Amino acid sequence: MEITLGLAALKLVGYGLATFGPGLGIGIACYGCCMATARQPELQGRLFTNFIIGAALAEALGLIGFVLAFIV
Amino acid sequence: MEITLGLAALKLVGYGLATFGPGLGIGIACYGCCMATARQPELQGRLFTNFIIGAALAEALGLIGFVLAFIV
Amino acid sequence: MEITLGLAALKLVGYGLATFGPGLGIGIACYGCCMATARQPELQGRLFTNFIIGAALAEALGLIGFVLAFIV
Repeated sequence: MEITLGLAALKLVGYGLATFGPGLGIGIACYGCCMATARQPELQGRLFTNFIIGAALAEALGLIGFVLAFIV
Repeated sequence: MEITLGLAALKLVGYGLATFGPGLGIGIACYGCCMATARQPELQGRLFTNFIIGAALAEALGLIGFVLAFIV
Repeated sequence: MEITLGLAALKLVGYGLATFGPGLGIGIACYGCCMATARQPELQGRLFTNFIIGAALAEALGLIGFVLAFIV
């Protein structure tokens, strides 16, 4: 039994796996930000900052997967 | 037994994996936005902004997978 | 024994993977919209708008997988 898989063939599969966590994590961060803002409206600026930082960190992981497809 | 998988054969599989996290994340973000809006209706504009930003960040990860199918 | 998986053989598998996340996400968004509408019935229009936007974003990811099956 021989299975032949080239490098390029798995690049997009790898990227697909790389977006799983970040996509889900951003959604959960947004959920937390919205619920917290509704509970303490006067903290909306601070909560939004927290959300953006968390989403940016998660997004970076996905984008690194995109970059990795070109430099591998 | 020989299994040959070329590059193109896995592009759509990779994209399919890439939509899993973002698709789920957008739904969770929308859920949070709706529940928070119901709790604090006067914040609906702010909550909607949070939701759109989170959904756009997650959606970008999925769309990058679509773009990657053409440039890899 | 030789198994050859061509391009077409994995298109439907890829699309199947692509519908998992969005399908689940749309359901969660709809769940949130329904629960929020039940809590604040006077906001039903606004909540429905939120739900439709979130569902459209998630649905787009699935439909792009359908399109990708023809252009890859």
